[in-house]
Amino acid sequence: MSSQPPVAIVVLAAGKGTRMKSDLHKVLHPIAGRPMLLHLLASAAALAPERTVVVVGAGREQVEAAVAPLGAGTAHQAEQLGTGHAVMQAEAALAGFAGDVLILYGDVPLVSAATMREMLDRLHAADSPEVVVLGFRPADPGAYGRLIVAPGGDRLEKIVEYKDASDTERAVDLCNTGLMAVQGERLFALLARLGNANAAGEYYLTDVVELSGQAAVIEAAADEVAGVNSRAELAAVEATWQQARRARAMAEGATLLAPETVWFAHDTVVGRDVTIAQNVVFGPGVEVADGATIHAFSHVEGAKVASGVEVGPYARLRPGAVLEQGAKVGNFVEVKNAVLHAGAKANHLSYIGDAEVGAKANIGAGTITCNYNGYLKSRTVIGAGAFVGSNSALVAPVTIGAGAIVAAGSIIVRDVTEDSLALARGRQEERAGWAARFRASMKAKKGGQ
Amino acid sequence: MSSQPPVAIVVLAAGKGTRMKSDLHKVLHPIAGRPMLLHLLASAAALAPERTVVVVGAGREQVEAAVAPLGAGTAHQAEQLGTGHAVMQAEAALAGFAGDVLILYGDVPLVSAATMREMLDRLHAADSPEVVVLGFRPADPGAYGRLIVAPGGDRLEKIVEYKDASDTERAVDLCNTGLMAVQGERLFALLARLGNANAAGEYYLTDVVELSGQAAVIEAAADEVAGVNSRAELAAVEATWQQARRARAMAEGATLLAPETVWFAHDTVVGRDVTIAQNVVFGPGVEVADGATIHAFSHVEGAKVASGVEVGPYARLRPGAVLEQGAKVGNFVEVKNAVLHAGAKANHLSYIGDAEVGAKANIGAGTITCNYNGYLKSRTVIGAGAFVGSNSALVAPVTIGAGAIVAAGSIIVRDVTEDSLALARGRQEERAGWAARFRASMKAKKGGQ
Amino acid sequence: MSSQPPVAIVVLAAGKGTRMKSDLHKVLHPIAGRPMLLHLLASAAALAPERTVVVVGAGREQVEAAVAPLGAGTAHQAEQLGTGHAVMQAEAALAGFAGDVLILYGDVPLVSAATMREMLDRLHAADSPEVVVLGFRPADPGAYGRLIVAPGGDRLEKIVEYKDASDTERAVDLCNTGLMAVQGERLFALLARLGNANAAGEYYLTDVVELSGQAAVIEAAADEVAGVNSRAELAAVEATWQQARRARAMAEGATLLAPETVWFAHDTVVGRDVTIAQNVVFGPGVEVADGATIHAFSHVEGAKVASGVEVGPYARLRPGAVLEQGAKVGNFVEVKNAVLHAGAKANHLSYIGDAEVGAKANIGAGTITCNYNGYLKSRTVIGAGAFVGSNSALVAPVTIGAGAIVAAGSIIVRDVTEDSLALARGRQEERAGWAARFRASMKAKKGGQ
Repeated sequence: MSSQPPVAIVVLAAGKGTRMKSDLHKVLHPIAGRPMLLHLLASAAALAPERTVVVVGAGREQVEAAVAPLGAGTAHQAEQLGTGHAVMQAEAALAGFAGDVLILYGDVPLVSAATMREMLDRLHAADSPEVVVLGFRPADPGAYGRLIVAPGGDRLEKIVEYKDASDTERAVDLCNTGLMAVQGERLFALLARLGNANAAGEYYLTDVVELSGQAAVIEAAADEVAGVNSRAELAAVEATWQQARRARAMAEGATLLAPETVWFAHDTVVGRDVTIAQNVVFGPGVEVADGATIHAFSHVEGAKVASGVEVGPYARLRPGAVLEQGAKVGNFVEVKNAVLHAGAKANHLSYIGDAEVGAKANIGAGTITCNYNGYLKSRTVIGAGAFVGSNSALVAPVTIGAGAIVAAGSIIVRDVTEDSLALARGRQEERAGWAARFRASMKAKKGGQ
Repeated sequence: MSSQPPVAIVVLAAGKGTRMKSDLHKVLHPIAGRPMLLHLLASAAALAPERTVVVVGAGREQVEAAVAPLGAGTAHQAEQLGTGHAVMQAEAALAGFAGDVLILYGDVPLVSAATMREMLDRLHAADSPEVVVLGFRPADPGAYGRLIVAPGGDRLEKIVEYKDASDTERAVDLCNTGLMAVQGERLFALLARLGNANAAGEYYLTDVVELSGQAAVIEAAADEVAGVNSRAELAAVEATWQQARRARAMAEGATLLAPETVWFAHDTVVGRDVTIAQNVVFGPGVEVADGATIHAFSHVEGAKVASGVEVGPYARLRPGAVLEQGAKVGNFVEVKNAVLHAGAKANHLSYIGDAEVGAKANIGAGTITCNYNGYLKSRTVIGAGAFVGSNSALVAPVTIGAGAIVAAGSIIVRDVTEDSLALARGRQEERAGWAARFRASMKAKKGGQ
Repeated sequence: MSSQPPVAIVVLAAGKGTRMKSDLHKVLHPIAGRPMLLHLLASAAALAPERTVVVVGAGREQVEAAVAPLGAGTAHQAEQLGTGHAVMQAEAALAGFAGDVLILYGDVPLVSAATMREMLDRLHAADSPEVVVLGFRPADPGAYGRLIVAPGGDRLEKIVEYKDASDTERAVDLCNTGLMAVQGERLFALLARLGNANAAGEYYLTDVVELSGQAAVIEAAADEVAGVNSRAELAAVEATWQQARRARAMAEGATLLAPETVWFAHDTVVGRDVTIAQNVVFGPGVEVADGATIHAFSHVEGAKVASGVEVGPYARLRPGAVLEQGAKVGNFVEVKNAVLHAGAKANHLSYIGDAEVGAKANIGAGTITCNYNGYLKSRTVIGAGAFVGSNSALVAPVTIGAGAIVAAGSIIVRDVTEDSLALARGRQEERAGWAARFRASMKAKKGGQ
């Protein structure tokens, strides 16, 4: 591996994405909760590139803001003069770079690091092609450019646009993805020779294949190189990603009762003997430890779920939720920025926010931690073994001592001592016969209408 | 367009629908929340028909009641003597009508206005066929009647029942949908010549093709002419409708994170840059403006959702819910017949019914508007900028003044003045050591069992 | 039927199931809420077998515990020496048995009783084969063993392993499931002749076919004989089961708005003219009577739902929930071990546990039955026609008399007399201008930071 030459990544992301009909730049639309461009850059990062240059154009501010935190550079393509022209814009950013250049597309987000590596490695096989083009065999080759390969090998003779292709060439089902690896010292010399004497007046990157005369082909699966030009294609790429992720979860020992109804985020971590029921949505930042169960209709984001924990059905875990060993969060319960220590339970209809719930504490149905006064958020601390009766409101900041009991329906505004009982509710009164009189009057009123 | 002749629609809806195993008439089973017959009539309405006649039979009362509000007429087929006989029943209702007659089926609900128009237009092409039959090519032609077309054109020679067809005829994959456009002045003359000398003793509409000798064919996609004879076929037609609707939403600029888990109603309006997450169900009467977000597991019916609004996850919007610009309705919240003005929030575990919530008001978790006393519904009005503490009950009719604060856990039964604080809750008391003693007694009791 | 010989079932369940990556034995992973082995045994029970022997090995304790309640015997295969060796272990358990032996696999759970019966019946056709093998035609025959059948019949010449097969044999698409029916008096004699002179050193059950020379083939659909060796295959078998169950529900007269999003349990009973909306999960023990409606996002387990009942959306019915005629349980409501008598309603955000709710009683939004004090569960009884105001807590054991009204927000700790009004809440007070001063101070504080 140490003999691998340095790598530079050029990602084309200047296209307008008109068909998306969106104010958000196409390459920033999310897949599994992460902008598709960042998926691609994360895969490329596995190559440890020396430089990464994103070629931006329309809507460049959005893209620049998204890649800045990653340390990737950008180059501006002011006019849309074709893919070859787009790569030329990266020349300044690559000045002084000696190594291989991998050209990717911001709207082809699922290309794996392994495929990228294969393309680069092919540059350094015995025959040292100057250019390696990534091909694929779509179910319907349609109007894709065809890759014409010399018989008995992987030498690429030319890329022919569909409209210029002969019938024989159109019968070829190996198509061009546009992705390319090029020996860096040759790249800009080849680009400099590109012409734009075509109907569109554009400089086509694909023309470097014929200019070089020394090109090879690597093949990828069609799903891996699917592009996104519309919301329907976005949904298709999301589906491909999810399907692969579900398969991985199952292969690693999780049961998905209905895999097609579980949606992972790009960084979800799922253990062994985890059961995930129907219709579970993971947002970013989730870890589910071995042996946990996520029941149906749960929505889990930014949460840590320990071993033996049960979540849901209908549980919403929001960022900062930490459920320790054997804790339970049940139906219609929302947990945000709160730790439930081992064995703690909040089984029904509760909001637990900005809180710490002690080991084996029991939170009754309908309990609300009142963590917000319109201006500030405050914390609720519930001690180990405490029992909070149903329909209680805990007005933060407040501490319920270990082993304390809060009577049902109490509004707790002051700290509760350990092992004590706290009550804060009205006394029960009764007005005999009132209901009968009320009904009679209501019926009279309705009858009188 | 002004030269188009008048149109009459005849819809056959007399079949029993036995295989549905339902007390509801087959043609009234809903697709996307609307009876399938009304889908068909809505499409036909685009032709501005002079008359519409629905031929009814078994269960006619249900069908008559459904079409009456639309101004469509009905004709009664007392005996089930075949499709030709069914159309004959419309003769009285079409007395004096001069124009084209389009014959549709109440259980073939997805035929588009464009296809209907194409059929009628074909009647008036140069060769003026008397009859135009709609054909389709099913994946499995099975036992469908075959359309035998003269070579090199669209002239229909005959319709041959599968059981009467030769091997050559069975090899034809163009099949009969049963739908037909007929020159009105010819229709009843042709029908009058139908015989019933067949095994079933029925009058077949298809026989008019041979009787006329002047028929042409138009083709439709198989999905468009799918019929409904069972609940499984109902589900299949629903799926076809939903798939097309989802594709349209995406083409118009909405992101559907998992399109196959979003269900639209027949009249849902969705804007651009709307995001709809997984598992969202729309009932009738919904408008979602540009840039709104519907999070997962939301159920939205009869609601207006303005730009920048966030709904869900797990939000239920019921009829009369109006969420203005930037409002938020969060998890486990139900909103019914209530306006949330701009920036108002009800984020958790609340019921907001028969209410008006002022701009930027904040409804705490667990808040209930008590709008019903068993007989009457009353309104709750919450002023702009008010803050309703968690676990409060607002007993309507009641008004919370602008800027007022309701303390957590309060039961509000009288109006609250602007900018004041309202409290209605018990005082907190504590009984030291009570919980410890309680636990000891409980353990003793359990141990003693 | 009376002439059918006795049947013994041998189920092979000794495999480790390493690819499941689970601490739970492979054959105990559930399909539709029931361990797959028990699915298979339930189907086999339709044959009224005289004896049932489950051959166990790795993880035998789990399997033995699961089958013990069914009265099935087990036999221990201490070493994994092949399928033939596994069946040999059943010899003692079958001592003295005279009849037919059916050999099944615990990880091939969907084989129907009809197919089993067909295999056994084939043993007793005119030609009396000693062995009947179950074959199938997979979409991709891959490396399955091929069944080589004599031309023009169902006589099985041999089973050839893929690796030993000639090209002609590999072109055969009829594959071996491994399932077999054998004339009992021949079984152990044939097994005794098995050799293990093969690469794996194992005794292969399939070898009995050649040893016998008198074998026949029965074919099953590929879905019916799908095996489970991984979580992905488990999910696939679950999907097959669910798809068949959904089709049956529709054929019997239920509308499933989106069949692919309804999950039944193995024992769910669904009536006619039942509507089941999108995303409904049934756990075990559910009966839904004619004309009931289950709205979207409902989770129903161990519940009886009578005619005319409406459930959901977002309703959770847990074991012991009984909803009588016309009752309603609405959004974000959990019902556990509770009867709602005819016409009773709990429409919003409530927990009804260990309770009885009288006919036409109305449970307001946010009502909680406080049934648990940390040690004991107690009952709540609500009389007919009672009206429980919103956000109330009913602290069990407690009885609300018939026709009584509980004021909103009340904490009820003592019984309420019939037709009376019960209140238990604080008095409303107001502090004028407090909210305005609070906001000013908060803004000052924030500004000062």
